[in-house]
Amino acid sequence: MELLDGQFVSKAIQDSLRLKVAQLKAEGKKIPHLAAVLVGNNGASETYVGAKVKACSEIGFNSTLIRLEASISENKLLQVIDELNNDMDVDGILVQLPLPKHISDEKVINALHPSKDVDGFHPANVGRMVQGAPSFISATPHGIMLLLEHYKIDTKGMHAVILGRSNIVGRPMSILLSSNSQPGNCTVTICHSHTRNLRDHCQQADILVAALGRPEFVTAPMVKEGAIVIDVGITRVPDASKKSGFALKGDVKFEEVAPRCSYITPVPRGVGPMTIAALMKNSYHACANRNEGSLA
Amino acid sequence: MELLDGQFVSKAIQDSLRLKVAQLKAEGKKIPHLAAVLVGNNGASETYVGAKVKACSEIGFNSTLIRLEASISENKLLQVIDELNNDMDVDGILVQLPLPKHISDEKVINALHPSKDVDGFHPANVGRMVQGAPSFISATPHGIMLLLEHYKIDTKGMHAVILGRSNIVGRPMSILLSSNSQPGNCTVTICHSHTRNLRDHCQQADILVAALGRPEFVTAPMVKEGAIVIDVGITRVPDASKKSGFALKGDVKFEEVAPRCSYITPVPRGVGPMTIAALMKNSYHACANRNEGSLA
Repeated sequence: MELLDGQFVSKAIQDSLRLKVAQLKAEGKKIPHLAAVLVGNNGASETYVGAKVKACSEIGFNSTLIRLEASISENKLLQVIDELNNDMDVDGILVQLPLPKHISDEKVINALHPSKDVDGFHPANVGRMVQGAPSFISATPHGIMLLLEHYKIDTKGMHAVILGRSNIVGRPMSILLSSNSQPGNCTVTICHSHTRNLRDHCQQADILVAALGRPEFVTAPMVKEGAIVIDVGITRVPDASKKSGFALKGDVKFEEVAPRCSYITPVPRGVGPMTIAALMKNSYHACANRNEGSLA
Repeated sequence: MELLDGQFVSKAIQDSLRLKVAQLKAEGKKIPHLAAVLVGNNGASETYVGAKVKACSEIGFNSTLIRLEASISENKLLQVIDELNNDMDVDGILVQLPLPKHISDEKVINALHPSKDVDGFHPANVGRMVQGAPSFISATPHGIMLLLEHYKIDTKGMHAVILGRSNIVGRPMSILLSSNSQPGNCTVTICHSHTRNLRDHCQQADILVAALGRPEFVTAPMVKEGAIVIDVGITRVPDASKKSGFALKGDVKFEEVAPRCSYITPVPRGVGPMTIAALMKNSYHACANRNEGSLA
């Protein structure tokens, strides 16, 4: 069993981006600039945006954090997006979700120019991903693909079983892993709340992607000997033995599943850190596309 | 075993559209107007476009057939698209594919305004379909969904196995059947040229969608007793016994598979005629959206 060490790989990708940015600087070229929009002051959102801004600064990207009151109107927010779309120095725009209830996430995401949508949530980017055209792929699925790529896992012909059909993880994973690419070219089964005989499906998986958000749902008897297990879940579970009062649990019962696996992602330090690497890579490419004048 | 009679259902849908158009006329409202663009004079393309224009006229839609020389430049074609995008009387635009080799299909499709892309090939429509948002779904997958709907087949929880991952059939079918909708809510397995043990996958299918373009590929031992079989293939196979010199064959060996099925589509008169119904429905909705002023 080998750990898919997201912490390590994410750092390696960010290190390589740092070198590339240094080179851009040396050549007098534009360096990537990510604008992050944070509406209100939800604690988790603050943490996520903070980590992204910090990553930018460590890599050498420019970043702008735009803080807006929770009471901002939808129209005013759309105006901010419009300004960022038209700001020639901004390469990527990231709107931290969820937005306050009086604002439509969909309307705001759809207002982003697809060429700056580094989160890959705009329908045009999702559609281009489906069609196998160049696109921004959202952070979690992109991060998982980068992880498989780093470990040179030849996925062709494997049977991947995806637990969960969310727009941000399960659905794009099912598309990417079944696409004509490497990693990819898997036979893919997508499972969800209406799936019957879930255990039977899991047991067939050469690659099992657990993205249900149900702590320790996947147990040893559900996993085939030698499978690759990707654990996307991360849930806070009360734990009196921890100083913080909680432990972070994935969707996989790691201790009993790990010994059966060829590869497995830990939680934490697995998929989580890869999302930052994926976002940074997207931001870099958004800038590179603009440097090349190939505004999608 | 019951036949899924695409010929009959397609006619029923077109009849119901005819009534709706008559009502629009009676109310003095705008009626749907489909513009079809045909570049060059490929025989098959002529036939397809001809069938679509004929369907428009039978239903009472307006239609315009724009014939362009095969030698037209890409820029000139993009200009034609632009004019149609801006023509307030045109609700839907259909560009018959394939285009001549010197023109990029992708560039032309991406130039369509998504609100007029009744073929559902624009990435924004594909992305919106993936996200479960209102969108134009392309003719073949949409037609299949309409067929399942007509026969009130409750697909929830069924295991659908899709043979083929093309952008126009297999991929969208895998997305639609696994979406939270009715028909839909299936566990879906998508298979393709790199799939191992294809027969094992097929044997698990409650719904088997064959979209490989390989005549009579699916044989009886691959099909579970009671399965629903959707045959998307249609290939001309030489047949000396026919006047035309060829027979139309689906991807399924109908004679031996049909007795095992609960439902099966014949070839011809199955999925084929449904594509026209789906396109007409999309054109109607494109017009309805404009009548309501909800230009996507």
